[in-house]
Amino acid sequence: MPQLTHETTAFIDGLTYDAAGLIPAIAQQHDTGEVLMMAWMNRDSILETLRSGRVVYWSRSRQALWRKGDTSGQVQTLKELRVDCDKDCLLVLVDQIGVACHTGRRNCFFTSIGDNSPKIIADVRISPDKLYEK
Amino acid sequence: MPQLTHETTAFIDGLTYDAAGLIPAIAQQHDTGEVLMMAWMNRDSILETLRSGRVVYWSRSRQALWRKGDTSGQVQTLKELRVDCDKDCLLVLVDQIGVACHTGRRNCFFTSIGDNSPKIIADVRISPDKLYEK
Repeated sequence: MPQLTHETTAFIDGLTYDAAGLIPAIAQQHDTGEVLMMAWMNRDSILETLRSGRVVYWSRSRQALWRKGDTSGQVQTLKELRVDCDKDCLLVLVDQIGVACHTGRRNCFFTSIGDNSPKIIADVRISPDKLYEK
Repeated sequence: MPQLTHETTAFIDGLTYDAAGLIPAIAQQHDTGEVLMMAWMNRDSILETLRSGRVVYWSRSRQALWRKGDTSGQVQTLKELRVDCDKDCLLVLVDQIGVACHTGRRNCFFTSIGDNSPKIIADVRISPDKLYEK
């Protein structure tokens, strides 16, 4: 596992976290540009993500580290981690195995809204039953 | 301006907003896939964005609707609005005029962190002085 420099850990300490110690993280497929999902990270999940090379979020519902893919197998490998100008949002470039969404779709943003009625624009690739059977 | 259907406005009412009535919105350049920025919307800014075709956020610092580009001229035209599986995050496909970031860079995610020290990976395209002089 790579060691992080003092400068990098100090930078991570200096990010703007919300009252719960969290920062939003956008996961983007590194080669296609597809925005896969948005989740939350805390300091520990950022450090583990950088050190392990596998993307780890903070689950607000479970109040625990969420090593993406532990249950479903749909792991995200870290390609690059970027921080925005205000240091209050992360862009995580990943290589997504299978599907990012718990519904079995490749990405979570599958409902389009506009002039007409809300419309589902992506198909389920893997049945959720199959995704979480193990 | 397009009229929104009752189904669409009901869907917008049913989104998961935080305690302050806000929902995170990721802006992505519609044709290149570049993630430009993350900001926040409330119900009113979503409705105005859909009706006007121009992207409007909620400014947490100013506590007011933020019609992106009013001061800088760097307007975002709406191409499509998508909602995620949990209805707690928006993906806004836009056509960005000029630069999205107040630093004068095309997107806000210009700092890369990893094994080495944090690194600035994008150049300033328009000086912030010029961006906000008008």
